[in-house]
Amino acid sequence: MPPEPVDFWFDFISPFGYLASLRIDELAARHGREVRWHPLLLGVTVLQIMGLKPIPETPLKGDYAVRELLRYQRRHGQSIGRDLFLPPMAPLPPARLMAALLRLEPAQAKPFARAVLRAYWRDGRQIHGAADLQTIGVAAGIPAALLARASDGALAREALRDEMDQAVARGVFGSPFVIIDGEPFFGVDKLELIDEWLACGGW
Amino acid sequence: MPPEPVDFWFDFISPFGYLASLRIDELAARHGREVRWHPLLLGVTVLQIMGLKPIPETPLKGDYAVRELLRYQRRHGQSIGRDLFLPPMAPLPPARLMAALLRLEPAQAKPFARAVLRAYWRDGRQIHGAADLQTIGVAAGIPAALLARASDGALAREALRDEMDQAVARGVFGSPFVIIDGEPFFGVDKLELIDEWLACGGW
Repeated sequence: MPPEPVDFWFDFISPFGYLASLRIDELAARHGREVRWHPLLLGVTVLQIMGLKPIPETPLKGDYAVRELLRYQRRHGQSIGRDLFLPPMAPLPPARLMAALLRLEPAQAKPFARAVLRAYWRDGRQIHGAADLQTIGVAAGIPAALLARASDGALAREALRDEMDQAVARGVFGSPFVIIDGEPFFGVDKLELIDEWLACGGW
Repeated sequence: MPPEPVDFWFDFISPFGYLASLRIDELAARHGREVRWHPLLLGVTVLQIMGLKPIPETPLKGDYAVRELLRYQRRHGQSIGRDLFLPPMAPLPPARLMAALLRLEPAQAKPFARAVLRAYWRDGRQIHGAADLQTIGVAAGIPAALLARASDGALAREALRDEMDQAVARGVFGSPFVIIDGEPFFGVDKLELIDEWLACGGW
């Protein structure tokens, strides 16, 4: 029996989630693991459930997070192609669309998410809701008819609500967040630890 | 000229700060660096300045932090000898006393802090203010007369206020926090990164 897939959550507007998305599949594959990607809304976990502020609006931490992000990019030879101080896109439409794809055609959810993350974070494109998401999805090879079906408001809303309920029930709160065989890991900094964990079977 | 010392901040009531304190000097010494220890009050940075809640009172994050703490201990063969769910000691008295020692006799501040951390976190002792701190300090070889001088309310208050002002001005907010040649590192998870940074001169 193949080992259980690794679960990976990210918010589309989280730069640390984006940087983790660039490495998580290759990292898990080295240990014979698949990765299931899940959308997460920090607006629900961090703001509503935890009652905290967004990091950029948190004194001291906001400045620190930018430094850490730049350092991480330098260290890993990654780069973000957009101004971090621009207002972020609305994270709800891509999260809903991704959740709907996970229901309708799970294999298409990850290519869709990857294409959106790339357009937004690597290429610095502005993304304004449904039409832009369709364009990006089609360019990534997702069938237009499937994207149209996944854009159904009621279906997508319910799919994302389910995803979020499950995430919170499993203790997920940040971006990136990874669960491996029940063990939770928060933060892009944990990728090296995850690598070790997968190699040795955990401590 | 020897390289600049590394600066290390911790709150006496932070278990992650304690675990970092067990490794930071040895780690820095391998790269020819001294470490200057500084007291920090999370009640000032996290609660007052950042406007956040204590981690144990933050939904989702509180549970996660406990898991991470246990995992870290298993991985590094460290252990905490007290019940994490007991109410913490008041962090102000040891922080003030340490700040006063940093002024009066800097070489005695670290042995004092280490003895308090050990008594509290390793041995699970209850620490109730000045008398217990004196006992612990004397047992650690700090002259009783010096401890008495450092317990002067006005001196200690002002010394800690200065320490806190400087810490905040340098962007310090959490425990543990390390600054090396102007580069900030937050969290016990960063010790491996710090090791790499000191080895290669940074990215």
